[in-house]
Amino acid sequence: MQQTFRLVIDCPDQVGLVAAVSQFLANHNATIIEASHHTDQQTGRFFMRHEIRADSLPLSLEAFRGLFEPIASQYDMHWRLSDSHHKQKVALLASKESHCLNDLLHRWHTHELHCDIPCIIANHPHLQQFADWYDIPFHWVDFETLGKPQAFSDIRKLLLHYQIDLTVLARFMQILPDDLCQDLAGKAINIHHSFLPSFAGARPYQQAYDRGVKLIGATCHYVTSDLDEGPIVEQEVMRISHSDTAADMVRKGKNCEKQALANGVRYHLEDRVIIHQHKTVVFA
Amino acid sequence: MQQTFRLVIDCPDQVGLVAAVSQFLANHNATIIEASHHTDQQTGRFFMRHEIRADSLPLSLEAFRGLFEPIASQYDMHWRLSDSHHKQKVALLASKESHCLNDLLHRWHTHELHCDIPCIIANHPHLQQFADWYDIPFHWVDFETLGKPQAFSDIRKLLLHYQIDLTVLARFMQILPDDLCQDLAGKAINIHHSFLPSFAGARPYQQAYDRGVKLIGATCHYVTSDLDEGPIVEQEVMRISHSDTAADMVRKGKNCEKQALANGVRYHLEDRVIIHQHKTVVFA
Amino acid sequence: MQQTFRLVIDCPDQVGLVAAVSQFLANHNATIIEASHHTDQQTGRFFMRHEIRADSLPLSLEAFRGLFEPIASQYDMHWRLSDSHHKQKVALLASKESHCLNDLLHRWHTHELHCDIPCIIANHPHLQQFADWYDIPFHWVDFETLGKPQAFSDIRKLLLHYQIDLTVLARFMQILPDDLCQDLAGKAINIHHSFLPSFAGARPYQQAYDRGVKLIGATCHYVTSDLDEGPIVEQEVMRISHSDTAADMVRKGKNCEKQALANGVRYHLEDRVIIHQHKTVVFA
Amino acid sequence: MQQTFRLVIDCPDQVGLVAAVSQFLANHNATIIEASHHTDQQTGRFFMRHEIRADSLPLSLEAFRGLFEPIASQYDMHWRLSDSHHKQKVALLASKESHCLNDLLHRWHTHELHCDIPCIIANHPHLQQFADWYDIPFHWVDFETLGKPQAFSDIRKLLLHYQIDLTVLARFMQILPDDLCQDLAGKAINIHHSFLPSFAGARPYQQAYDRGVKLIGATCHYVTSDLDEGPIVEQEVMRISHSDTAADMVRKGKNCEKQALANGVRYHLEDRVIIHQHKTVVFA
Repeated sequence: MQQTFRLVIDCPDQVGLVAAVSQFLANHNATIIEASHHTDQQTGRFFMRHEIRADSLPLSLEAFRGLFEPIASQYDMHWRLSDSHHKQKVALLASKESHCLNDLLHRWHTHELHCDIPCIIANHPHLQQFADWYDIPFHWVDFETLGKPQAFSDIRKLLLHYQIDLTVLARFMQILPDDLCQDLAGKAINIHHSFLPSFAGARPYQQAYDRGVKLIGATCHYVTSDLDEGPIVEQEVMRISHSDTAADMVRKGKNCEKQALANGVRYHLEDRVIIHQHKTVVFA
Repeated sequence: MQQTFRLVIDCPDQVGLVAAVSQFLANHNATIIEASHHTDQQTGRFFMRHEIRADSLPLSLEAFRGLFEPIASQYDMHWRLSDSHHKQKVALLASKESHCLNDLLHRWHTHELHCDIPCIIANHPHLQQFADWYDIPFHWVDFETLGKPQAFSDIRKLLLHYQIDLTVLARFMQILPDDLCQDLAGKAINIHHSFLPSFAGARPYQQAYDRGVKLIGATCHYVTSDLDEGPIVEQEVMRISHSDTAADMVRKGKNCEKQALANGVRYHLEDRVIIHQHKTVVFA
Repeated sequence: MQQTFRLVIDCPDQVGLVAAVSQFLANHNATIIEASHHTDQQTGRFFMRHEIRADSLPLSLEAFRGLFEPIASQYDMHWRLSDSHHKQKVALLASKESHCLNDLLHRWHTHELHCDIPCIIANHPHLQQFADWYDIPFHWVDFETLGKPQAFSDIRKLLLHYQIDLTVLARFMQILPDDLCQDLAGKAINIHHSFLPSFAGARPYQQAYDRGVKLIGATCHYVTSDLDEGPIVEQEVMRISHSDTAADMVRKGKNCEKQALANGVRYHLEDRVIIHQHKTVVFA
Repeated sequence: MQQTFRLVIDCPDQVGLVAAVSQFLANHNATIIEASHHTDQQTGRFFMRHEIRADSLPLSLEAFRGLFEPIASQYDMHWRLSDSHHKQKVALLASKESHCLNDLLHRWHTHELHCDIPCIIANHPHLQQFADWYDIPFHWVDFETLGKPQAFSDIRKLLLHYQIDLTVLARFMQILPDDLCQDLAGKAINIHHSFLPSFAGARPYQQAYDRGVKLIGATCHYVTSDLDEGPIVEQEVMRISHSDTAADMVRKGKNCEKQALANGVRYHLEDRVIIHQHKTVVFA
C-alpha cells in the first residue's frame, strides 16, 4: 500500500484558507491523491481532508507538523495529520453474536482494514474460537460474576493496557457507563441494528416487525452517553415484506449491520470522518 | 387490459381452506393469473389473493359472489371480490407542492393507475393549473377563511358528492380530524416525507438534517387518527451525505415520495393490500 | 429449526391443478407454512412450492411420495419433495480470494446455511487455513503440476467421493470443462463479479472501470457450458463514482459477491429455485 | 436562487495547480460554496470544480475570465466559467412515450431544473398536449413523410434556430446520424432503458426478460455516433423477479429512466460533468 499522509482540518470558514493550505502543500511539492472539502453553510464551519503521497514530500510527519502549525494557528484550525502506514490499535468488543466480529476480522486479515487488533473483549466466552483462529488475545469479562461496575473497570484497564486507539462495539450488548463514553468520545464506534432514530433501544427488529415497516436497517455511530444518539457515520437498509418474521429480519439485517459497521470503521481508520457537534462529515 | 376478477380473503388459518377455494375456482374453470398466500404465524391469520381471468369464468361478478358466500361463511372469511374493469373513484388532496399530484396524474393519464379521478381538492389555489390540464374539477377549500371545522365539513361533502372510494393525500398539509379519519378508515392513503417511524410530525427533512442521518425516505401509509402511525404500505429511501442541506433533502426526497405514493396507490387500486391490525399484507 | 417438507412442482398450467394439490394436502391434514405460485404466461408453465410442517402430516417422506405420485403423473409434473432436516452435501471450490469462502463458512457455522460442507477444493494452497479453522478437509488440486484435464478429473473424483449434492464456485477461477458442466447441471452455482450480461469473461471490474459505469455488481448463476450464460439466481449492485479505481471496485464489489452468492446458495438449499429453460423462478 | 459562478477545470495534474487556483480565488475574495477535486491516477489528468458566490466577487464573469486566462494557459487547462443565473437553452426530443418528457417538464416548471426549454421536437404528434400545457412550441417532424435525411435536417435547423445548448433525447426513438452526433458532441444527452452495457440496442426490457436478470435499469449518457456507447453520466437500477413480465419491466423501468435522465440533465446544467475520453467525472 502506497504510503500517504492525511491532513484533516476543520475550522471557521474564511477566504484564503484553501489557498494557504494549497500553497503550503505546493511549496513542499506535495502530490495530492485525494482532496475533499465541505462547508457547513449553517454553522459556517469548513472541513477539508487531503491525502498526500508521502514520497512526494521532503518532510517527515513531525517536520510537516511543525511547519504547518503556524498556518493552523492563524486560521484557528482543529487539525490532525496521520501516516497511512501507522496502524491504529483497535479493540473489538462482542457478546455472543459473531457476524460482525467475523466480518471485521476477515477484512482485517485481508488488509481491507488497515489496523492492529491487539485484543478482543467479550462479556461471554462463546466467541473465543474466532480470536484463536486469528491469533488474537481474547478476554472474557464475566459481567454476571463481576457485576457491571467491576466489569467495565476491567474493560477500561484492558483498553489502557493495550493502548487502544479505537474501540469497536461489534454487537456488544452492554451499555457503556457515562464516564467511559466520555473518555472514549470520538474513539468508540457502535453498530445499532436499526435505521436510527427509528427503533432505538432494545430488540429493534422486534420493534420493526411490530410496527410493520417495509425496510429494515443498521446504523454505525459514535458512542455517546445518550444511548443510540451518537453521531451517525453510516447507515444501510434493505427491503423486507409482510412475509418476513422478526427472525427473518434478524437474519437479513445482519448483512446491513456488517456492511455499515465495516464501512464506518474503515472511514474512521482512514481519517475520513470529522465529528461536528452531534453529526459527522464523512469524506467517503 | 385483460379483465380479471380479484378475490381477496383473510380468515383464521385452518386446514382445508386453500383446497376449498381452489376447488371452487377449478369447478368454475377459473384460469388463475396470479395467486398469493400468506400466513401470519404469530396471529394465525391467513391471507390470500387470486387474480382470475374473467373470460375463463362462466359467471358474472354477482353470481360468483353468491356462489362463494357459503364457503366464505364456513371459513369465517373477511373477503372481497372485485372486477379489474371497475374503476375506483379517487380524490386527490393537495396543498402547494405539485410533485406528487403531477406524478399521480401522469400515471393515471397513461393508464398505469387504473381509476377515475373525479376531483382534486386543495387548501390553496396554486395547483388549479394541473387540474385544468387534466380536465378535472378543482375545489379550493380555503382553510383560512372557513376555519378548520367548516373546511373539513366541505371536504367531507365533496368526497360524498363524488362518491369517492379512495382519498389520496398527495402532500396535503392539513391533519384530518379524528371522525373523518375513522370514516375513511382503510380508504385514505397519505405520503409522509420520512422513513417512519423516524421523523414523524412536522418538517421531517429538517429533523433528518438535524439528526445527521445518512439516508432519507418517504412512507406511504393508511390514514388513522394517530398521526403518522397508520399501517405502512410502502417505503422508499435514498442515500444522502453531509453535503446535502435540508433543501437538498427536500429536493431529493421528492423522488422517494412520488415513488412510494404511486406504488401504494397502485397496490390499493389493484386490491393488493390487506390491512391486518395496524400493519399491512401487500401482495406486490 | 422446525422440520418441514418442501413440495416443489412445475408442470403445464391447467385448471384444477392447484385444487388437486391443495386437496391432497388437506386430506393429509397438512399445515402449510409457506405457499408460492407462479405461472409463466409466455410458456404456459406453472410453478408451485409448498413448505409444510412435517409434524402436521401423518406421513413419512417416502409415504408422501408414494401417495402423491398419481397426482404428479396425472398433471405431468416435474416435482421434488424434500425434508428440511436433510442436509445437502456442499463442496466449496475456491482459488486465492477468501471473501466468499469465509462468508459462506461463517453462514454455515452459524446455521444460516443448513447443509454439510464435507470438503473444500482449491487450485491453490492459500486458503487451507480457513478449512482448518472450520475443521473441513481441504484438497489442493494443483492445476500447474497436473494439467487441466487431470486436475478436473481429480475434482470430479472428489465430488463423487464426498457424494456432493451442490458444488459452489466461490470465486474459483478455473473454467469447468463442458462435460463436467453437463454432469453438474442444476447442481453447481457460480458467482461472477459483474452484473451479467455486462462484463462477462475475465477481469470484469477492469472492464467496468474502462467503460465508466456508475454501478457495479455481482451475479450468482447456475453453471452451464456457456460461460457466464447460465440461469441467473440472484444479482446485487452498488453505486460507484469516477473516484473509484478498479482496485476500489474490486474491494467494494466483494460485498455484492458475498451477498449474491450467499442468497443464491440459500435459495438453492431451501428448494426455492426452479430452473426453467435458461432462467429461474426463485420463490425467495 | 443564490447566484454563483462555476469554474470547471481539467488539465494535466501537477504540483502547484490547486494553490494557483485557490490563490487566485482568495485574491479576489471569493467565497467558495462547493469545491470538488479528482485526479485520474491512470491518465494523470486533474479535474476541479468550484462553485463561488457571485456576490463575493468584485468581478463580472467577463473580467473573471480575462484575469484567469493566464493561469489557465500556464497550466494548459481546459476550462469553463459559467453563471448559475444564465439559463441554458434545452431542446427536448421525444416520440410517443411521455414519462420522461413529463418528468423533465415538471422539474423545470418547479425550478428543479434551471434552464429554458424553447422547444419540444417529436417524430410523432402524440405529445403535443404536454407542450401546450407548459406553453412550449411543439414541432412534429414527420419521419415517415419526410424520410430520415430530411427529418434530421429539419431537426438540425430547429436546434440552430432556437440556439439550443443542450439536446435531451427523452425517449426519442430515432438514431441520430453520425454527423449530427459529432456536431452535438458533449451537448446531447440520451436515456437508454437498460443498465448499459447490458442490453444495448432495441427492446432492452424484452432482452432483459429473455435473459432472466434480477435487476433492470436505465442509463443516461452522452450521445455519440457509437450507439449506446457514449460516456455514462448516471445509472439507476431496481430489483425485479420472475413474476415480472416484460410489460411489468417496461412499467417499473420508467421510474429508473425518469430518475437517471433527470439527474443526468441536472448535473449537466449545473456544470457538474466533465467528459474525459469516453467516461465522465460527475461532481454530484
